[in-house]
Amino acid sequence: MKYYYLIFCLVLSCSTTNTSKDNFGIVIHGGAGTISKNNMTEEMEKNYKNALEEAVLIGYEILKTGGTSQDAVEQTIIYLEDSPLFNAGKGAVLNFDGDVELDASFMEGKYLNAGAISGSKKIKNPISTAIKVMNSSPHVMLSGNGADKFAMDMNMELVDQDYFKTKRRTKSLERIKDAEEKLISNIHNPDYKAEKFGTVGCVALDKFGNLASGTSTGGMTNKKWNRIGDAPIIGAGTYANNKSCAVSSTGWGEYFIRGVVAYDIAALMEYKNFSVSKASKTVIDKIGSMGGDGGVIAIDSKGNVAMEMNTSGMYRAHVDSNGKIDIKIYK
Amino acid sequence: MKYYYLIFCLVLSCSTTNTSKDNFGIVIHGGAGTISKNNMTEEMEKNYKNALEEAVLIGYEILKTGGTSQDAVEQTIIYLEDSPLFNAGKGAVLNFDGDVELDASFMEGKYLNAGAISGSKKIKNPISTAIKVMNSSPHVMLSGNGADKFAMDMNMELVDQDYFKTKRRTKSLERIKDAEEKLISNIHNPDYKAEKFGTVGCVALDKFGNLASGTSTGGMTNKKWNRIGDAPIIGAGTYANNKSCAVSSTGWGEYFIRGVVAYDIAALMEYKNFSVSKASKTVIDKIGSMGGDGGVIAIDSKGNVAMEMNTSGMYRAHVDSNGKIDIKIYK
Repeated sequence: MKYYYLIFCLVLSCSTTNTSKDNFGIVIHGGAGTISKNNMTEEMEKNYKNALEEAVLIGYEILKTGGTSQDAVEQTIIYLEDSPLFNAGKGAVLNFDGDVELDASFMEGKYLNAGAISGSKKIKNPISTAIKVMNSSPHVMLSGNGADKFAMDMNMELVDQDYFKTKRRTKSLERIKDAEEKLISNIHNPDYKAEKFGTVGCVALDKFGNLASGTSTGGMTNKKWNRIGDAPIIGAGTYANNKSCAVSSTGWGEYFIRGVVAYDIAALMEYKNFSVSKASKTVIDKIGSMGGDGGVIAIDSKGNVAMEMNTSGMYRAHVDSNGKIDIKIYK
Repeated sequence: MKYYYLIFCLVLSCSTTNTSKDNFGIVIHGGAGTISKNNMTEEMEKNYKNALEEAVLIGYEILKTGGTSQDAVEQTIIYLEDSPLFNAGKGAVLNFDGDVELDASFMEGKYLNAGAISGSKKIKNPISTAIKVMNSSPHVMLSGNGADKFAMDMNMELVDQDYFKTKRRTKSLERIKDAEEKLISNIHNPDYKAEKFGTVGCVALDKFGNLASGTSTGGMTNKKWNRIGDAPIIGAGTYANNKSCAVSSTGWGEYFIRGVVAYDIAALMEYKNFSVSKASKTVIDKIGSMGGDGGVIAIDSKGNVAMEMNTSGMYRAHVDSNGKIDIKIYK
């Protein structure tokens, strides 16, 4: 009888361990804003959904085959940076001078290591350089020409500005410059907000129970004075902690910095025992009450996820450990 | 009898209001690190204490005469930036190329407005430009040449690099460069940490019950690649919220970013009802357990203060609403 009991315990313990280890998952976003059926053709919708599916499955395959959340986040974001559809890497928005200036950050939840770059004009894949800052420099955050110089020192791939620029973003800059010259506080006009902002992000939980988060963006169309938004700020755009969750933000960066959005979600989970879903909703509501808008994706250490926004849409996708895929654009 | 009761209530209510309104205060720091009696002459100690006293009394007078916490923080930090003793403005540390690169941030606790600059090479008083970013731009954070350009556009005072540079910091850079070339991970050597880091900061509560926080620094001696530390990061180096407290950090910035230090103190107060003192100690202990060091100053909405560190010293001063002044250097 004793032996049966021991075997029973052994089986139970193995199965518990397996369940825990199998509980992985990945969530991505491609920006939040005024995205409605009215300003979207069927073809555009298909292109975005295809890109979101291809991106999220890259990370999912890495996690499924025992890869780390860091690799899943990096490779997934590289795909989104390389796609001209999203405001990151190729296809990023243009600043006041007509240049692309890129920001990215990464954080891992086991040791709370992090890396970030802001204002790069040359780095093909900012997310990889953010990870390189974390792993190969004594610093967390590098900026401007210094970030580009670091990437060069580390043999990361550099490209010309022409690589990043697309016709769509050039037209956007013209339209927004024109509108901003005519109106004083055009930044609050929802028709332009969708064009002005945009980010890509990915959060993942791997089979080892480790969380990771990454965010990458070209920032805000027509930005001046080497503006830094929330995307490269640890605590605002990106945060990960195995004790609570991994978060990536997208939206009106100034509000997300002031709200310390990504860390606030983690703090509500750790200090008030909120679920990842309740914490994300609470923080997005706070941003809304301040006058800001945008969204977040988050995943906790059990694989529960949140995709919360106060805008009419957010490009997003989630795959759970069973391979169930969920792709959405509208709220 | 009724009338006596009414008059009594009126007096009580006035006196309560006054007590609350009179409950103002100010705390400053001039950096934390390996500061011991051994590496400090009597004259140096006197100079530092005098500077701390003069600085904190500027803010105190503003608060006492009904000025705002924003003004108190700005004017106090301007004094510290103008003093060659501290690592901010004049007397800031030099980067790898022998240049001064300045970071600063400001946040007010009523509307959670904030402004920050990083990597300026020309702005005489970075704290004032950080406040200008908050008040006169749609952004929270500007960087590098863009921050200098913004300051110029706003008619802020610009100066040459020579204005900032002191003999002491030039010698420091030489010493640290030499040591870092000889040793691999010299950043962990406590003898050099005191020279490498440093920040100034100020937190204040005014008679209107409004909190404010500001931080300003030259960052880390021998820094490369336009490194950004915690000082200009809202949530890490600086945070203020009337609901909880105002915080300014100083220390090894990379750890303070990863720990989201300034906001974490506010979160522990708001979400776990910790006192400002317990919250500050908890967060500094967390940074210590990660391997980082430094200190924080904080003041809550009732005027309670904390000056917490895990280093052997932190230049600091506090004046309460009764004018009681407390100046300290060692732990």
